[in-house]
Amino acid sequence: MSFTRLQRMIQGKDAPIVVGLDPRPGMLSEGESLYEFNKRIIDATWDLVPSVKPQAAFYESQGLAGLTALRDTIKYSREKGLYVILDAKRGDIGSTAEAYAEAYLGKGAEFESDALTINAYLGSDGIKPFLELAKANDKALFALVKTSNASSGEVQDLRTIAGESVYVQVAKLLDGLGDTEHLGFVVGATYPEQLAELRAMFPSTFFLVPGYGAQGGGGKDAAPAFGSEGRYAIVNNSRGIIAASDPRAAVIRMREDINGYIR
Amino acid sequence: MSFTRLQRMIQGKDAPIVVGLDPRPGMLSEGESLYEFNKRIIDATWDLVPSVKPQAAFYESQGLAGLTALRDTIKYSREKGLYVILDAKRGDIGSTAEAYAEAYLGKGAEFESDALTINAYLGSDGIKPFLELAKANDKALFALVKTSNASSGEVQDLRTIAGESVYVQVAKLLDGLGDTEHLGFVVGATYPEQLAELRAMFPSTFFLVPGYGAQGGGGKDAAPAFGSEGRYAIVNNSRGIIAASDPRAAVIRMREDINGYIR
Repeated sequence: MSFTRLQRMIQGKDAPIVVGLDPRPGMLSEGESLYEFNKRIIDATWDLVPSVKPQAAFYESQGLAGLTALRDTIKYSREKGLYVILDAKRGDIGSTAEAYAEAYLGKGAEFESDALTINAYLGSDGIKPFLELAKANDKALFALVKTSNASSGEVQDLRTIAGESVYVQVAKLLDGLGDTEHLGFVVGATYPEQLAELRAMFPSTFFLVPGYGAQGGGGKDAAPAFGSEGRYAIVNNSRGIIAASDPRAAVIRMREDINGYIR
Repeated sequence: MSFTRLQRMIQGKDAPIVVGLDPRPGMLSEGESLYEFNKRIIDATWDLVPSVKPQAAFYESQGLAGLTALRDTIKYSREKGLYVILDAKRGDIGSTAEAYAEAYLGKGAEFESDALTINAYLGSDGIKPFLELAKANDKALFALVKTSNASSGEVQDLRTIAGESVYVQVAKLLDGLGDTEHLGFVVGATYPEQLAELRAMFPSTFFLVPGYGAQGGGGKDAAPAFGSEGRYAIVNNSRGIIAASDPRAAVIRMREDINGYIR
């Protein structure tokens, strides 16, 4: 779904929040399945948030049963009117990229989601096939630009002879494809300066912001992502919500924290 | 499986060749399933080659049925004594990377393979969890360094202020993890100069070489990958074998082409 529609959903719930559905072993209650765990989280939070983001790795690690839970989780979330961002960080070229796009952004596909995260290390051959299907099917993509982890600088912060970091050059490459309605950036809340830098360079590109909560970022860190109109970002929280004793209360606290900085 | 063992398998069959199992829609015969297609290719070539490489995208795009075919293809290949490289180009951090590693390199996992391709754009946080499991389980990884596609230079060839390209810096980062027995590079045959450059810098790192055949590379292009002892690489061919009217004859032609340059 295009970002204009996601922005409307965020506005409608007054919560620029994605609930990260990353069910790690050990989070599940006795006898609870992956899908039941997710359903419990969704039922507790769906009226408060516009979006959920299942992390593909935690389903793939459980084999076909895990992938069945992923399919059912995506389906249930969309039935609840949630915008589903599948966090799979796929990246490949040509017809292989088309096949990945079809898997997650295809109309009627078993894992059909509203948006997909992708990795742009392979260059535009690895982005365009995803973008073409996203456009055709009214879906969206978030490409990794500056990730939230401690070592993200090892490759992303390398300074090029053009006087810019690799992540800025990746951002320019993505921006050059000219479709801010369907192609957004992943930029971590753990790097507020770089977040502000990218926001200044790309004022109306939509950002998916990980790194809030367990990874150390707070509302103040995420605030620069939203831009002057306060509407160009959505912030993910996984463990801080799904591992909380009261996920609903955790969402409400996060909403207050973030909204306090973007008003 | 460690590269020493893969090298022994290559030597045993005198064929540094991986058959890429990328069944694109349209390649299948009337009424043939994905798994039946793969089984036909495997049955025609398993005694000639040491390894197969299923491309995850072509299975994911077919939903749970496709993923079941992937599981069965991996299992059948390993029963035939083939070294299975799952080409999934996964890349994530921390416990998420651990979950991906568990999915594809875990002992007894439904998709248990011998090696996995990964994307290192996220830095060492995104490599170490994979490498730890690979070591523990006697598996291997191939990280994208210089990919075979036309636009790979857009990010990978950016020149940094250290006077080196991004792909060289990524290669150094990988090399710095100090485990050439379990961590190899993906370097495309379509860039023979860069292949030779990387081989000279990393004389005993194992390379997985895509780009042969349909993508334009020939035996002469791939030759620099093998190093002075002629044993540090394996070359993938997908369409050139699996879409050939006689896959067995295609493997034999490729073996002659490549072996002609590394003797």
